[in-house]
Amino acid sequence: MKMIYFFGGEETEGNAQMRGLLGGKGANLAEMANLGLPVPPGFTITTEVCKYYVKEGRLPEGFEEELEKYLKKLEDATGKKFGDKKNPLLVSVRSGAKFSMPGMMDTILNIGLNEEIVKGLAEATGDERFAYDAYRRLIQMFGNVVMGIEKDEFERHLEEMKKKKGVKFDSELNAEDLKELVEIYKEVYKKHTGEEFPQNPREQLKRAIIAVFKSWNNPRAITYRRLNKIPDDLGTAANIQTMVFGNLGSDSGTGVGFTRNPATGENELYGEYLTNAQGEDVVAGIRTPMPLSKLKEENPKIYEELKRTAKLLEKHYREVQDFEFTVEKGKLYLLQTRDAKRTPLAAVRIAVEMVKEGIISKEEAILRIDPSQIEKLLQPIIDPSVEVNPIARGLPASPGAVSGKVVFSADDAVEMAKESPVILVRSETSPDDIHGMHAAVGILTSRGGMTSHAAVVARGMGRPCVVGCEELDIDEERKEVRVKDQVIKEGEWITIDGYTGDVIVGKVPTIEPQIRGELEVLLSWADEIRRLGIRANADTPEDARKAREFGAEGIGLCRTEHMFFHPSRLPSVQRMIMARTPEERREALNEIFEHQRNDFYEIFKVMEGFPVTIRTLDMPLHEFLPKREELRVEIERMRAKGEDEEKIREKEELLRRVEELYEFNPMLGHRGCRLGIVYPEITEMQARAIIEAACMLKKEGKTVTPEIMVPLVSHVNELRDQKEVIKRVAEEVMKKHGVEIEYSIGVMIEVPRAAVTADKIAKEAEFFSFGTNDLTQMSFGFSRDDYGKFIDVYMEKKILPEDPFSTLDQEGVGELMRIAVEKGKSANPELKVGICGEHGGDPRSIEFCHRVGMDYVSSSPYRIPVARLSAAQEVLKKL
Amino acid sequence: MKMIYFFGGEETEGNAQMRGLLGGKGANLAEMANLGLPVPPGFTITTEVCKYYVKEGRLPEGFEEELEKYLKKLEDATGKKFGDKKNPLLVSVRSGAKFSMPGMMDTILNIGLNEEIVKGLAEATGDERFAYDAYRRLIQMFGNVVMGIEKDEFERHLEEMKKKKGVKFDSELNAEDLKELVEIYKEVYKKHTGEEFPQNPREQLKRAIIAVFKSWNNPRAITYRRLNKIPDDLGTAANIQTMVFGNLGSDSGTGVGFTRNPATGENELYGEYLTNAQGEDVVAGIRTPMPLSKLKEENPKIYEELKRTAKLLEKHYREVQDFEFTVEKGKLYLLQTRDAKRTPLAAVRIAVEMVKEGIISKEEAILRIDPSQIEKLLQPIIDPSVEVNPIARGLPASPGAVSGKVVFSADDAVEMAKESPVILVRSETSPDDIHGMHAAVGILTSRGGMTSHAAVVARGMGRPCVVGCEELDIDEERKEVRVKDQVIKEGEWITIDGYTGDVIVGKVPTIEPQIRGELEVLLSWADEIRRLGIRANADTPEDARKAREFGAEGIGLCRTEHMFFHPSRLPSVQRMIMARTPEERREALNEIFEHQRNDFYEIFKVMEGFPVTIRTLDMPLHEFLPKREELRVEIERMRAKGEDEEKIREKEELLRRVEELYEFNPMLGHRGCRLGIVYPEITEMQARAIIEAACMLKKEGKTVTPEIMVPLVSHVNELRDQKEVIKRVAEEVMKKHGVEIEYSIGVMIEVPRAAVTADKIAKEAEFFSFGTNDLTQMSFGFSRDDYGKFIDVYMEKKILPEDPFSTLDQEGVGELMRIAVEKGKSANPELKVGICGEHGGDPRSIEFCHRVGMDYVSSSPYRIPVARLSAAQEVLKKL
Repeated sequence: MKMIYFFGGEETEGNAQMRGLLGGKGANLAEMANLGLPVPPGFTITTEVCKYYVKEGRLPEGFEEELEKYLKKLEDATGKKFGDKKNPLLVSVRSGAKFSMPGMMDTILNIGLNEEIVKGLAEATGDERFAYDAYRRLIQMFGNVVMGIEKDEFERHLEEMKKKKGVKFDSELNAEDLKELVEIYKEVYKKHTGEEFPQNPREQLKRAIIAVFKSWNNPRAITYRRLNKIPDDLGTAANIQTMVFGNLGSDSGTGVGFTRNPATGENELYGEYLTNAQGEDVVAGIRTPMPLSKLKEENPKIYEELKRTAKLLEKHYREVQDFEFTVEKGKLYLLQTRDAKRTPLAAVRIAVEMVKEGIISKEEAILRIDPSQIEKLLQPIIDPSVEVNPIARGLPASPGAVSGKVVFSADDAVEMAKESPVILVRSETSPDDIHGMHAAVGILTSRGGMTSHAAVVARGMGRPCVVGCEELDIDEERKEVRVKDQVIKEGEWITIDGYTGDVIVGKVPTIEPQIRGELEVLLSWADEIRRLGIRANADTPEDARKAREFGAEGIGLCRTEHMFFHPSRLPSVQRMIMARTPEERREALNEIFEHQRNDFYEIFKVMEGFPVTIRTLDMPLHEFLPKREELRVEIERMRAKGEDEEKIREKEELLRRVEELYEFNPMLGHRGCRLGIVYPEITEMQARAIIEAACMLKKEGKTVTPEIMVPLVSHVNELRDQKEVIKRVAEEVMKKHGVEIEYSIGVMIEVPRAAVTADKIAKEAEFFSFGTNDLTQMSFGFSRDDYGKFIDVYMEKKILPEDPFSTLDQEGVGELMRIAVEKGKSANPELKVGICGEHGGDPRSIEFCHRVGMDYVSSSPYRIPVARLSAAQEVLKKL
Repeated sequence: MKMIYFFGGEETEGNAQMRGLLGGKGANLAEMANLGLPVPPGFTITTEVCKYYVKEGRLPEGFEEELEKYLKKLEDATGKKFGDKKNPLLVSVRSGAKFSMPGMMDTILNIGLNEEIVKGLAEATGDERFAYDAYRRLIQMFGNVVMGIEKDEFERHLEEMKKKKGVKFDSELNAEDLKELVEIYKEVYKKHTGEEFPQNPREQLKRAIIAVFKSWNNPRAITYRRLNKIPDDLGTAANIQTMVFGNLGSDSGTGVGFTRNPATGENELYGEYLTNAQGEDVVAGIRTPMPLSKLKEENPKIYEELKRTAKLLEKHYREVQDFEFTVEKGKLYLLQTRDAKRTPLAAVRIAVEMVKEGIISKEEAILRIDPSQIEKLLQPIIDPSVEVNPIARGLPASPGAVSGKVVFSADDAVEMAKESPVILVRSETSPDDIHGMHAAVGILTSRGGMTSHAAVVARGMGRPCVVGCEELDIDEERKEVRVKDQVIKEGEWITIDGYTGDVIVGKVPTIEPQIRGELEVLLSWADEIRRLGIRANADTPEDARKAREFGAEGIGLCRTEHMFFHPSRLPSVQRMIMARTPEERREALNEIFEHQRNDFYEIFKVMEGFPVTIRTLDMPLHEFLPKREELRVEIERMRAKGEDEEKIREKEELLRRVEELYEFNPMLGHRGCRLGIVYPEITEMQARAIIEAACMLKKEGKTVTPEIMVPLVSHVNELRDQKEVIKRVAEEVMKKHGVEIEYSIGVMIEVPRAAVTADKIAKEAEFFSFGTNDLTQMSFGFSRDDYGKFIDVYMEKKILPEDPFSTLDQEGVGELMRIAVEKGKSANPELKVGICGEHGGDPRSIEFCHRVGMDYVSSSPYRIPVARLSAAQEVLKKL
């Protein structure tokens, strides 16, 4: 077993591919050395040695001999001697695992100093202050990392010394002060360990290596691995590297660089530099570092070398690099490099530009972007230059930052929105609030989780939304919200941040990020590659326009509920519901018909040339009427006040109907196709509106393909019943207009029974569209409105790996879908299959849809770019 | 193609096996003739001829020749001549299909009479009155059946004649009157048809035959076939039979006999006889027929011949027969025989006695009893000798008739039940009412269907119940119910009949049918044969006793909810719910613990030696608190009245918790194992109570096998979590008691996701028990509390073949179960699988359970006999 690998110059033994054995840091140091970059030489002790140590509790046979051999090699490479008084070699010992675990494990610098050598260092550098500062640091780091002495045990003596000397910064202490401090530190060390600080440099080194290996199993590291799903048996490597010093005068310094701007993606050298400083000092915030652009003016030579190095690194790694460097007396050293983290905006720009520069291929560019980040490009953010003081924090349910005046009811929202932007604040929202949510620029609730009604609807509408903000005590009656000791009243400004969940009093400036040209380019490449069709869930012409703008190839779900909720139509809808005979009902429906036809006409016009899937009315009728308990309380109140008997009777009549329609479990109640079956007049009206709108367009020379979708089908006979109604009406309308419309009839598969009987249903259906929201609700028996009561505990106890409403539960719900696709397509090979639930915009769920052989996914307009990218990635991953 | 088959004496060509060709009546006439029984000779024209006629609109080639041949044969057999004036042969023409369609098709008697022949008949019989009466009847029947003249067109002339003659009965008209009537009838005939009444007997016969064939497709017959699922293409046979007359004097008569008493099953000749009468006269109710027992005294010779014939028939058919006979001048003729309809009571007794008499085998006896009828043997019925006047009729939800005083709330029921039996009358019931339902002797609701809460619970408890009685206008506040113009107040007596749905004001005497010894015998035979185990759903020691009495081999579902609802425990339960910390919750649970342990102890004691499956708490916590809207209204009222602020605040505190627990869809909410996962203290307490009760019994030398069932599992991790809690507590308790208990842990499969991931769950479970109620709810997306809103329309439109809550939906829900059994047993071959939903007591669902390989079914105690019998039948049917 080879236990140690050298790096530095031509002797380098490792390379970037050896991350498993050398860790990320070690492999990259070797790679940079291979590239001929100025890496301070050193060697890496493999993860295998660590694993051996962790298992056996001792270092392997022959390790010490190897270590000696490599120390010798390092002395030869540097011309210095480890433990020598005149020309001492100092080294750092750093951990470095296969996967980056920033800050989780330990580092010890300046190993190789002792009472004698520190004097030699002072002489060699001509800087006594520097030498004793290095020695002080070694004692502290070694004491802390190797011996487990709390940092503060040392630091408080440093603070005392500064107080005593009347200075503010460490750097203001002189050599004598530091010598004194070294003495104190040694005593601290002795007091805590019962031994002297080891004076033998080889002992320092060996104990430091063991400490690094042990740090693999410190509690912080274990927790980090669990959270980041990193296996526990990888072990860490230990990197022993020659120390270089950025604090040896004004021709020295230290810095961090990015090969491109990680915030904007601009192709420029980006980073910070601190003259006459060590890496630690940057962190300590003693002085403000200068941007690298300023270094260009101050030290053009180093800047140019850095720039050249950066280009080389990026070209070599084919990815933006984040690197650390030190300048020691005018000489540049690279200490580390790794792939740079970046903003979504930068990620897209970089990927596209790298393709144009010939560095990577289109396919690579597509695979490099995390689809879920794309969404964040499409909403405003709080201006990062402004400092904010949130008064509360909820769950970030729908991205985007927005300011508006507080309103407490949907009706008030509609009213006040005419004057100014409003934020709808409610304890929870219900379908009654849709018009208010539409009118508002943002939604804030005190109850509900990431998939509560408010959250789902807000995401669908692309409205920023914060939910479950439990600190808020909302009094909808008094129109005020209390939080901590503050009271916010209707009409006051607040700002919500759907990225963070923050709630801020007052108006906060926000930035509207533009959809960069690069995103468009990237998505157009994705479109060339993907197999899955991409559609949008869109209920209005505005949504449809948004959808096309974002690249939808049709509408996969057009809900007709909101058309019924429109304030100008609600009275007709309520008349329809109060009707006691089909005739009365038809009359009321007639009043809605023209509106509905116009809605469809407008949507069809926007979607010209594309298919539009329209779902017939799905919502239980009682949702269009006032709530039972509210009516009861109101009547009680009217009675108490002795109000007009006639008025009370009227309310009571309404209550009677509401009682009649009342449902214990509306989710499983009289909704979906069950409405159209009991009241065929409703389906008739909707079919007429759809087909007539299509006929009108056809006469204008435009085509559209309506796909009429029957919701909540559980038995094929339900589809047969509704199909008969739709076909009859369609024939009639087309005959009247003398026009042939291509239309199809299909079902929403959202009931488990439909999935397991898909073969029977497929024989009558032209398409399936999975309504995975309801399918998830019924497969798990989870009500989305109620599961907030236990889901937190479920996540905490790891009963569910993820929230099944955010990411499709492939094991269970997915199994039902797999069965349905298989049975459906084998019974009807022409069957088109898609998904229109919330999951249609979730990358991991899209992967599943691709895998089980669906034809398209449909998502809210704001998630279409995500879906386009994910769909392309799935094709590429399969290759 | 042979078109005609002769019957009578040794010339008989058909037999009982030829039902398809000769119809049931024709085949049985041939069979009786073969047996040497006195059947008036005749011949049967096959269903093939009918089918030909229906298809081609004419009789087949060569038919007339055949008919002539058979007429000749009949003349030879009777020594009479068709169309002869002196010695006329008269015949009847009757339809007779493969399956009995009583009253659906037509009959014509006395064919062969005309102006001349009627005189000959008068001479031959010496009874002119008889001859003209026969002729009158022929004209009327022929006019009606063949020519479609309304009966009333004839009947009103008969009425006129009686009025004119000042008589009351037809029989009081003399020969002259009838001659006059014949003339009038002939004119009616001519007026409606434009032709004379056909004088040619052969023409009469041919047209009568064609009329019988045509009657196969009359609307009544078509409807009857659709309702009874009889194929439309079977056709009917036509039976031409020599007329015999029971109205030729006091030595003539007609009657109906049963080979055993069809009401009680007693082995005695049973039936009625009318002297000097024709079959029609019995129907017309002119005189009251005498029981056959009286005939024994009046005409012992005929009686003995009848008795001998009956025995012969029964022995031959190996089944109780219902036969028609006529005595013509002292000679007995048999006109028809068929399997007799009988009461459930009689059916069981007859089957068992026939086995003992060596007529049939045990297996045949078991297969002869319709299991669903068994249930009806176990409840009181309204004394059939009492005439009742129902004021309303609802749905018969749970069998049994019962009287009680009206109460309108569960609490009142408990209170008043101490004094007198009560019937709980509510618009609908909820789990809050359980204690009241238990206290009441019967339940009546104005809303809900056959599977509403009231219906399901009542059936489970074996309480008679009528639901959905919409005529009732129940005012629970004023404690009265209005129906039509009557008002029934609290405390008044009513009677409900759960067999019919009738609601009767006042007390009505009922009869408590005993479980006849024969039922016990039959079920013991069934037990020898069945493969499926039979368990009961039982929540209390009383239920458990009932279950054992009815033959349960264990408890398949013991719900623990009602233990929480007990008035003496409810305060502790509510304290538990209001608790804000696990400690507070534990304290409250401790108060419940001892009660619960005692409950289990008592149940275990009753079930000694058998397994008892106990389901951990399933019900959402809010069901133990007052309802949200009621609290709101109450607070509103308290405020209006200016009540004490302290009291209002208290209520508001309660309301706050209720609001917190409020669920939009409680069915899919925080219930089942989700409770035990969020509040492990509850599961701990229940596990402790179960294991400790078992330990106590074990110490007394008794064994019981507790099976702890985790409800509403959707993901295997839920089971893992609860299993860990249960095992930990069980170990602890067994250690404390120093006793080892054999117990197992399994899951209720009632969530679709559990079914499709059954392989994963089975690895952690020792048993599965299908909760088909919830599984049906979630598979269809039907809330059982709400589906009444549309299910009627669904049944009417035939969207569903049956109510899936009554009979298992094998196609969909069953498919999920099939998948679950298959996946479950293949992942864990030791897995025990049963069903504990309502369907466990439904014969057709039991068939399914047998087929997919379950180990046992569990049903409410009152359905156990049904289940035992069904399970045996399944084994026999498979052979």
